[in-house]
Amino acid sequence: MQVAVLAHESFPDRAKTAVGLLRYGDHEVRAVLDRTSAGTRVTDHIPDGQDAPIVASMEAVPDVDALVIGIAPIGGEFDESWRPDVRAALERGSDILSGLHYYLADDEEFAALAEAHGGELVDLRKPPADLAVAEGTAGGVDATVVTTVGTDCSTGKMTTAYELRDAARERGLDAAVVPTGQTGVAIEGWGIVVDRVISDYAAGAVERLVETPVGMDLVVVEGQGALAHPAYSGVTTSILHGSAPDALVMCHEAGREVVHGYESFELPPLADYADLYERVAAPVSGASVAAGALNTRALDDDAAADAVAAYGDAIGAPATDPVRDGIPDDVLDAIL
Amino acid sequence: MQVAVLAHESFPDRAKTAVGLLRYGDHEVRAVLDRTSAGTRVTDHIPDGQDAPIVASMEAVPDVDALVIGIAPIGGEFDESWRPDVRAALERGSDILSGLHYYLADDEEFAALAEAHGGELVDLRKPPADLAVAEGTAGGVDATVVTTVGTDCSTGKMTTAYELRDAARERGLDAAVVPTGQTGVAIEGWGIVVDRVISDYAAGAVERLVETPVGMDLVVVEGQGALAHPAYSGVTTSILHGSAPDALVMCHEAGREVVHGYESFELPPLADYADLYERVAAPVSGASVAAGALNTRALDDDAAADAVAAYGDAIGAPATDPVRDGIPDDVLDAIL
Repeated sequence: MQVAVLAHESFPDRAKTAVGLLRYGDHEVRAVLDRTSAGTRVTDHIPDGQDAPIVASMEAVPDVDALVIGIAPIGGEFDESWRPDVRAALERGSDILSGLHYYLADDEEFAALAEAHGGELVDLRKPPADLAVAEGTAGGVDATVVTTVGTDCSTGKMTTAYELRDAARERGLDAAVVPTGQTGVAIEGWGIVVDRVISDYAAGAVERLVETPVGMDLVVVEGQGALAHPAYSGVTTSILHGSAPDALVMCHEAGREVVHGYESFELPPLADYADLYERVAAPVSGASVAAGALNTRALDDDAAADAVAAYGDAIGAPATDPVRDGIPDDVLDAIL
Repeated sequence: MQVAVLAHESFPDRAKTAVGLLRYGDHEVRAVLDRTSAGTRVTDHIPDGQDAPIVASMEAVPDVDALVIGIAPIGGEFDESWRPDVRAALERGSDILSGLHYYLADDEEFAALAEAHGGELVDLRKPPADLAVAEGTAGGVDATVVTTVGTDCSTGKMTTAYELRDAARERGLDAAVVPTGQTGVAIEGWGIVVDRVISDYAAGAVERLVETPVGMDLVVVEGQGALAHPAYSGVTTSILHGSAPDALVMCHEAGREVVHGYESFELPPLADYADLYERVAAPVSGASVAAGALNTRALDDDAAADAVAAYGDAIGAPATDPVRDGIPDDVLDAIL
């Protein structure tokens, strides 16, 4: 699929979906829309991943199958300054992929334009209508299933999932990521935003997702939240049990000691935290924390190397910073 | 509130909500509707709890504020044979309380009758529209908060919650149950059916619930599902963390060794299971399994006594069968 990605006034630092699409997506990105950096190219801003021109509006975009909303503002509202571009894409007959809380399909103008020109409005946050309770069948998936789990939110679970996939592919394996959040779903063009699913069906949604890729050697499930998180642990547990993984990769941010946004709650010690994931996984699929991924973005190279080594020691498993250092062989070996 | 309870062709064995209302509800039940046992009385069928006449239809029911749907058929559909009674109650201006999946408010005839006669259609399964992410504040509740947790579904978590409440009241304490499922919500007339809440907000819903009762010495939160359940563990974890309990009571059915309906999944050994609940609770509120409740309905008196003793030994805490033996002092002391 050929796509354009809307990221007005936000590329690259506040456009997580756009950057994810460029770095990890299988779609061909033909242009990024950002009126503040129009005239530059993607590689002027982020060195790895696909390159593409950055343009000011849909007028400068070549033929595409879809326009993807590549930014997720707080609250998930639709910014009216994007309307002319969405309108222009629909008038060309393109689809629109959006992970906003605001459902584009409920917008009367967009719905009418999609109807008139044959495009589709795909609201990625809306769960399928036919979800059901998990049947406990995910353990039967032939592929090796690895779920990324975290010590907190925003510790790199999605990035780690994609880096593991890419490392497996470099080794010649067939590998896929199972997306469970808005950015991953936008990158893949399929998946379910599990935190929007009613609690009763959350594990069932994950079970369906993990059973979707066929013919894979490795399936990496993107985890969400954290097991010790006062608000999101239910989502985490549903993914942990619904995906019935063979192994876990625990993602942590160097130096984080309390739950972000809930600072009165301390993270458990890292060894205990890994142990807790294993104990909760055990009754369903018996996965161990086979590797660790450490986000060291706040550290310099020397401190990062020390932190990765200390993290591996703490959890008793090979570790890496997947963004800084990629996925070394010992980490990939540990999960396969 | 004065109520009638609809339980056609189901009282008492397949009318869990009706029986719960009679046994634990604060409403005055003026009649039970069951056309197959009309002419008998409640105490002819269940010895404990309120008595009331059993009648064939609304025609034989005295003045009531509400008609409660007291049965929950598989699938939660509305049985058309109930329509004349619901219609008659609405024509009198009564409210209808329903925990069915089928929302009565979406039924055109009922909506029109409610509008015309001033009654209200209360669909108890429908979550409030203004739920949000948990803030992690439930630990600040002044009352002692006890959450009932289970080794599986249908192990007696709701019944145990009410028996604990009643035992505390007998001791002169102010105590309340926080209902999180359809039957509890129907009994109380308030609460949230947590398994219907989107995953992101499930802990937030529980937090709101546990902060609702005021001036209590003891608040008992009705748990759902089980931590080792392949489908429902997310709901369980959301309740465990959202309620931030001071103590847990673990409910188990004597002899159950595998997950009901998921027989390829073994329950963890009981001591390990209690330990798992404590380890998962620890990062948020540090509750221990202070007591055990064992459902021994399949056993005779001698075997039941032995099973309760063995259960207490296994989990290292005082135990009881709350239905057979009530709540002894050592169990109540352990949770307070």
